[in-house]
Amino acid sequence: MDSKQHAGGFKGSRLIRFFPILGWLKTYSREDFNGDIFAGFITAILLVPQGIAYAMLAGLPPQLGLYASILPPVIYALFGTSRTMSVGPVSIAAIMIASALAAPEINTLGNPVESAVILAAEGGLILLLMAVLRMGGLVNFISHPVLTGFTSGASILIIISQIPHLLGLPKAPCSFDINCNIEYIQLFSTTTTGIGLLSLTILFFFSKPLSVILSHLKLSNSLITGISKCGPLLVVILTTLLVANYGLQNTASVATVGKITPGLPILSLNFLDWEKWQLLLPYAGFIALIAYVESVAIAKVTANLRNQRIDPNQELVALGISNLATAISGGMSVAGGFSRTMVNFSAGAHTQMAMLIAVGVLSIAVIFVTGWLELIPKTTLSAVILLAIFPLVKLRNIITTWRYDSGDGVAELATLLGVLILGIEEGLTLGILLTIVSFLRKTSRPHIAVVGRIANTEHYRNIDRYQVETWSNLLLLRVDENISFANAEYIGDFVLKELAKRSGIQHVILNFTSVSHIDTTAFEALENLNLHLQASKIILHLAEVKGPVMDKLEQTDFLEELRPGKVFFRFDEAVRNLGKI
Amino acid sequence: MDSKQHAGGFKGSRLIRFFPILGWLKTYSREDFNGDIFAGFITAILLVPQGIAYAMLAGLPPQLGLYASILPPVIYALFGTSRTMSVGPVSIAAIMIASALAAPEINTLGNPVESAVILAAEGGLILLLMAVLRMGGLVNFISHPVLTGFTSGASILIIISQIPHLLGLPKAPCSFDINCNIEYIQLFSTTTTGIGLLSLTILFFFSKPLSVILSHLKLSNSLITGISKCGPLLVVILTTLLVANYGLQNTASVATVGKITPGLPILSLNFLDWEKWQLLLPYAGFIALIAYVESVAIAKVTANLRNQRIDPNQELVALGISNLATAISGGMSVAGGFSRTMVNFSAGAHTQMAMLIAVGVLSIAVIFVTGWLELIPKTTLSAVILLAIFPLVKLRNIITTWRYDSGDGVAELATLLGVLILGIEEGLTLGILLTIVSFLRKTSRPHIAVVGRIANTEHYRNIDRYQVETWSNLLLLRVDENISFANAEYIGDFVLKELAKRSGIQHVILNFTSVSHIDTTAFEALENLNLHLQASKIILHLAEVKGPVMDKLEQTDFLEELRPGKVFFRFDEAVRNLGKI
Repeated sequence: MDSKQHAGGFKGSRLIRFFPILGWLKTYSREDFNGDIFAGFITAILLVPQGIAYAMLAGLPPQLGLYASILPPVIYALFGTSRTMSVGPVSIAAIMIASALAAPEINTLGNPVESAVILAAEGGLILLLMAVLRMGGLVNFISHPVLTGFTSGASILIIISQIPHLLGLPKAPCSFDINCNIEYIQLFSTTTTGIGLLSLTILFFFSKPLSVILSHLKLSNSLITGISKCGPLLVVILTTLLVANYGLQNTASVATVGKITPGLPILSLNFLDWEKWQLLLPYAGFIALIAYVESVAIAKVTANLRNQRIDPNQELVALGISNLATAISGGMSVAGGFSRTMVNFSAGAHTQMAMLIAVGVLSIAVIFVTGWLELIPKTTLSAVILLAIFPLVKLRNIITTWRYDSGDGVAELATLLGVLILGIEEGLTLGILLTIVSFLRKTSRPHIAVVGRIANTEHYRNIDRYQVETWSNLLLLRVDENISFANAEYIGDFVLKELAKRSGIQHVILNFTSVSHIDTTAFEALENLNLHLQASKIILHLAEVKGPVMDKLEQTDFLEELRPGKVFFRFDEAVRNLGKI
Repeated sequence: MDSKQHAGGFKGSRLIRFFPILGWLKTYSREDFNGDIFAGFITAILLVPQGIAYAMLAGLPPQLGLYASILPPVIYALFGTSRTMSVGPVSIAAIMIASALAAPEINTLGNPVESAVILAAEGGLILLLMAVLRMGGLVNFISHPVLTGFTSGASILIIISQIPHLLGLPKAPCSFDINCNIEYIQLFSTTTTGIGLLSLTILFFFSKPLSVILSHLKLSNSLITGISKCGPLLVVILTTLLVANYGLQNTASVATVGKITPGLPILSLNFLDWEKWQLLLPYAGFIALIAYVESVAIAKVTANLRNQRIDPNQELVALGISNLATAISGGMSVAGGFSRTMVNFSAGAHTQMAMLIAVGVLSIAVIFVTGWLELIPKTTLSAVILLAIFPLVKLRNIITTWRYDSGDGVAELATLLGVLILGIEEGLTLGILLTIVSFLRKTSRPHIAVVGRIANTEHYRNIDRYQVETWSNLLLLRVDENISFANAEYIGDFVLKELAKRSGIQHVILNFTSVSHIDTTAFEALENLNLHLQASKIILHLAEVKGPVMDKLEQTDFLEELRPGKVFFRFDEAVRNLGKI
């Protein structure tokens, strides 16, 4: 392991644990800075159009995206454990915000800006609460297949949402009526569509063909990254100049970003509307959950590549405070963005200093060039969103998943279809519920094996799979899972069913090697099983009981109730003592 | 094991599996009949007042309880796997029906009789659906502590609900206002209260002191049971005669049961109101769940005492059809009743023939003596309910549970308080959610042990608990649970954390002896862990991989990715091959 990084990231004092920045700042070098300053500029180039575009995607004024790109990355740099993650507005959270703001009970309240700020504040508080309760593990219950299905579904919705902007169409009037949709599409604006397609073409060229060409020119890798990531900036500048030069916003009605308040955000707590907080809470919960899950996933991808580590609980803290910071500075919800983080990483960022530099550059833009930002055509921003979002639609992944585990495949497909048909939050809920129900169902049927001994060893294996020795008066069982309310009845029923198949059994020996915990329900079931066996003159024994389990059993009368049954230290010892051949 | 019973209950053909009655009828003997006829009469004595009382408790006309005591027990006798369970109206389901009928959205629809019948029909369908999907295991997720807390809470609500009937008070006008309640109680009717207290006293005398006296008289046990179970019948007859003789229903306004349609139920499907079905569905789900869980618990208690077995899935079928039968015959929801079943069992019932006899007796009563049943004072029925319900309030159990497992204690208390404060369904939901969340949380932190070898053996144990041999270049880990989305991240993090504590590790060997399944998420995490370790020049190995898991891994490229890491058959073999001392 790389000891420097571990010293910086994890072995330090509790202060470093809470402020990971202190870890890397201590050993910050010239070399780190060289990487960071280049990556910082490249990432800043992406931050401006993405900030505006994702605000547009959420149905919010541009400054909510820009403000979300200023204070939150600084906060994350202080508290976050990822060295290279770029925190700011992200597309999936943006479409979730749009969905929340469109919900009838929220929509009627008006003032979407305030609602968006409340969503961010609540999301931040939820993440902090999860950190305090150490509930980070619960988000594991969004399994990878569900997350992939969700991301694909949300991305498809994003793509659909961008078509009107790209083609310069008015607000969509028809939902599923095909004729209506055909008529609607025919209303497209030639100029806007032209600018949009031009942007798409340039962006596509920058996304792949350009780097191939540049690598033939034998340029250095980071220079190639640098140049090829300039695509978004280039199309934005190009199309904005086009609009400004020909006054297209007036002559051809090309929709542009419009009014942006110049200057840096002003800190404010002017969003404490209790009724709104209540109504927005469930939406905030979903957004926070997805923001956290996607951020940690991205952080881990980059950390793994450099052999660094992510502390999931500290990430809850860092993202929680970042979302509070965005709310206070009037921005929208933030998370780690996949494309931005990969750009930052591959442009050579070593530490969060890169993001601090990017924020500096962005701030200058927000202060001095807002006039120009207002003229960016929306169709260009849609093109930027589309190019960023296409790789997130992973339909073929469903087949791969299905082949490995059909249950997981079903969950992935159901989540995808749920998002598309029922809605974003509903689809995610469906996926999570499916995962939990199928998990509970699986758990309620634990694996138990009837075992026998491999000749001349002390090893016991499943009698269905191996050639093993057995004893006519013994039923040997290995319980492969913890015993809890979820499976207690099943285990008792299993023992009785196996007994019903055999005659002459005098002893049942349970190997508890995999049992780390027995809860109240399971304990009562174990007592019942023992009583039931005693009624049939069969003696129950336990073996390989772990320390913590034994401690609990000793607290009760169970060991006396068990008599003449015993608890053996080793399974083999029990068999040698009780087996008759 | 008792081979006759197993032959009857489980080894027979599929026909016997579906109609367990065929199992015991084949070997039905004179001795069986002697037990059954006595128990049948005793149980019938209980069925009449309980049927009327539980209908009253649910806020329904008496015949819904009586009808529920006729067809459903006959159906259960055909399909049920318990020999002695008495299926019919039960108190907990009754209060849940009352709660559903009182819900504003149901109440406004009017016609509570129709609603109650729909609840039963829907409950029956839900149970059958669970049987088809083999989801019986899911009800395990009502853990014993939650079930106990729920039963205690619901029983307290029942007790409170009976006070007005017992004292002859009008409908309660005040909820939590103490002064109002004091004034309200002062409105009690002397005559009604007198009859109620007389009933309570007689019932209490029959419940315990009488059997003690009778056993001093050296009577046979079943005779003692028979006599002491006549309490409810006796008070009903006594107080009804009192009312009839003095016309108390008119002179002293003693409330009586009132109009009962004479005769047997008429089968009908006249309850197919689709809107009501939708609104009642969640309530029906809760009632069905509790009916099933309590029935199986009671069935198991009596079956265990006679070394018989209950088939949980067949119980879903039997209770499902029984509830459809009650709906078609115009009755309320049914389940196995605890007190009635214990009476039937201890009066010497051998088979469901006892219940068939009881139903015969009850039917005669319903046909011929409805005029008398109408004059039963409600206060007497309240006394019957109270005596049956008191033992179900188990407050001290919370302390016992808490001592064994504090988490379970919290769940029990929370469910109890939830039922009392939030409502019946809400309290139950709270308890189930608490159980599932704490279970998921526990599962997301599986037990993993760093192990070493006990000298001169092939046995490996936790290095924190045992004196074991270790190797400086090996990290030996035993994963004690299945690897799934719930804990995949945790396991990876655990390995990295343990590595960070050590230096010089060349091999990480995971003992998969407890791993029966690896889902998609966990598989991807395992791949990531392997990549991460390879980046640090550490080799990952697996050992004791089970057959089904190996089958899955061979389907993927993982075994190649692992190289030079290997999969060892035995853990000890891996250690001997790779360990350097």
